Amino acid sequence: MRVLLTGGAGYIGSHTAVELLQSGHEVTVLDSLVNSNVESIRRVEQITGRSVTLHIGDLTDPAQVEKVFAQETVDAVVHFAGLKSVAESVSQPLEYYRNNIDSTLVLLDAMARWDVKDLVFSSSATVYEPDGSNPVAENGRVGLDLANPYGRTKAMIEHILRDLAAADAGLRVAILRYFNPVGAHSSGLIGEDPKGIPNNLMPYVSQVAQGIRDRVSVFGDQYDTPDGTGVRDYVHVVDLAAGHVAALAGLRPGVEAFNLGTGRGASVLEVIDAFSAVIEHPVPYEIVAPRAGDVASSFADVSKSKDVLGWEAQLTLEDACADAWRWQSGNPDGYGTS
Amino acid sequence: MRVLLTGGAGYIGSHTAVELLQSGHEVTVLDSLVNSNVESIRRVEQITGRSVTLHIGDLTDPAQVEKVFAQETVDAVVHFAGLKSVAESVSQPLEYYRNNIDSTLVLLDAMARWDVKDLVFSSSATVYEPDGSNPVAENGRVGLDLANPYGRTKAMIEHILRDLAAADAGLRVAILRYFNPVGAHSSGLIGEDPKGIPNNLMPYVSQVAQGIRDRVSVFGDQYDTPDGTGVRDYVHVVDLAAGHVAALAGLRPGVEAFNLGTGRGASVLEVIDAFSAVIEHPVPYEIVAPRAGDVASSFADVSKSKDVLGWEAQLTLEDACADAWRWQSGNPDGYGTS
Repeated sequence: MRVLLTGGAGYIGSHTAVELLQSGHEVTVLDSLVNSNVESIRRVEQITGRSVTLHIGDLTDPAQVEKVFAQETVDAVVHFAGLKSVAESVSQPLEYYRNNIDSTLVLLDAMARWDVKDLVFSSSATVYEPDGSNPVAENGRVGLDLANPYGRTKAMIEHILRDLAAADAGLRVAILRYFNPVGAHSSGLIGEDPKGIPNNLMPYVSQVAQGIRDRVSVFGDQYDTPDGTGVRDYVHVVDLAAGHVAALAGLRPGVEAFNLGTGRGASVLEVIDAFSAVIEHPVPYEIVAPRAGDVASSFADVSKSKDVLGWEAQLTLEDACADAWRWQSGNPDGYGTS
Repeated sequence: MRVLLTGGAGYIGSHTAVELLQSGHEVTVLDSLVNSNVESIRRVEQITGRSVTLHIGDLTDPAQVEKVFAQETVDAVVHFAGLKSVAESVSQPLEYYRNNIDSTLVLLDAMARWDVKDLVFSSSATVYEPDGSNPVAENGRVGLDLANPYGRTKAMIEHILRDLAAADAGLRVAILRYFNPVGAHSSGLIGEDPKGIPNNLMPYVSQVAQGIRDRVSVFGDQYDTPDGTGVRDYVHVVDLAAGHVAALAGLRPGVEAFNLGTGRGASVLEVIDAFSAVIEHPVPYEIVAPRAGDVASSFADVSKSKDVLGWEAQLTLEDACADAWRWQSGNPDGYGTS
């Protein structure tokens, strides 16, 4: 298959490109490079020995999207493109709605005109309205009572996709709800390259380990969890990438949502301990006030992904820490400014 | 105040233009005329003896919207523009999301750049997730579990507005949730001018009364209501228009939602009977199968609008029927094709 990856130069996009290429698919990437780096595509080519067609363009611009569909044969789309900072979405909601919703509508319109029916969409476990129960299954309530606009953009897009599929019986859509992607490719060539202060735990821990930052802030230690710190489901990005390959292979008419997680929760302190073990010295941290909107614990029910897609996570938190550290220590400035 | 009305040439927009002008406000209209007619603006000028500035343009096109804000002084916006057919939204969901969501995001972006902070938004009672209870109050659940994409576009926009107001303390937004607007201006000069087969009950009844259509289809007579037909809250469009004037006057920092309804339900057969009394002969109808997604009964709790805005409906269902008939019989082809 010839697969178009929107946002394919980003963290999850680049790892998915590797897995797709290594499974024999052809990959075209459309990426604005606003939040990513062309170097990631070169590294994907280096890892796989295959070439990737890159279009630099903005998915909110119909003319640029049209050009890609006119020039390339597209059998299926994996739609990663979007802004993804929870905190930024609170302070700049209009940017998030414009980027995430508009771009998706432009893409769906182009797909309709070029008769492309197969889509895998990057969603997030943040679309589940929190009810405190775990593990979280795909039939959990997806609505708008969410802690932040970022999550709402994803929930809205999920509902838009369902409405489109109800009107067009030919559409085949898989919605992948990521839990907490971590780690990097085992080659050390590609990984997460956040701009500025990392929003997510593991890149933050990596930068502390590297000496770029002083210590990890742990947001709260009085949660109702074994050690009091928040529990999340950290899934290795290479497992996650393989989930996209499985989802493409398993597409069926209509819309189907799948959790991509490990099914196991790890606390913030467990992550710090696992990383400390990899680098063989303790990563410094301090307990600070909990953040508004954070839940105590969230981990995935992964039975549907296993049963329907035949996918399950293979790698461990320790693998993720070792791979994240290989990437961080080998690329202290990420992809640099190339 | 100089008020910009998006979609101001439409049914509710034109009636609101009249009430605003008669309250001493100045009115600028931005309308694509895709689903409305420039003649309605001429009629508004005829009723009020005041002039309206009309910009013909598409709200999804940032350049066209920019031009309006550059040329006009805008103190506040009343945002009517949008596609509004429930049935069409099911068959053409992408059109609905693109038109209703994109246009709103373009408008909000222009408002931010031109420092316009006051907004009244046309929402709908369809944003309430049905739970069978009545009357429906503003704290009812607004989410995505709705019967159609049209309602979802409105619910999404409501949540987008709340996120924007959370990020910008200067915004003052009133969300007006319309129940079932009916009737026409008492002058008989402006009214509802649906293209093709009417989606709503009263224009359909009017066209049957006029002899344009054979009979009214009544969708189900086995509901748990006094006469078995569906009960809705029909609010006269002139009352509704006055609600917009009151909402503008009552704007406060943040986002506040208000029901615009009468607080009283009327069944389909009551509407047909009231209309038959006006024309002094029975409007023919037949009972057909109920429609998927229709609830038995829905009417508004109007206490908040009364308490906070000092607004309540003054006109009756009989007024609405008489005014609708004056409009229909005086304008059998609506605004025509001018």
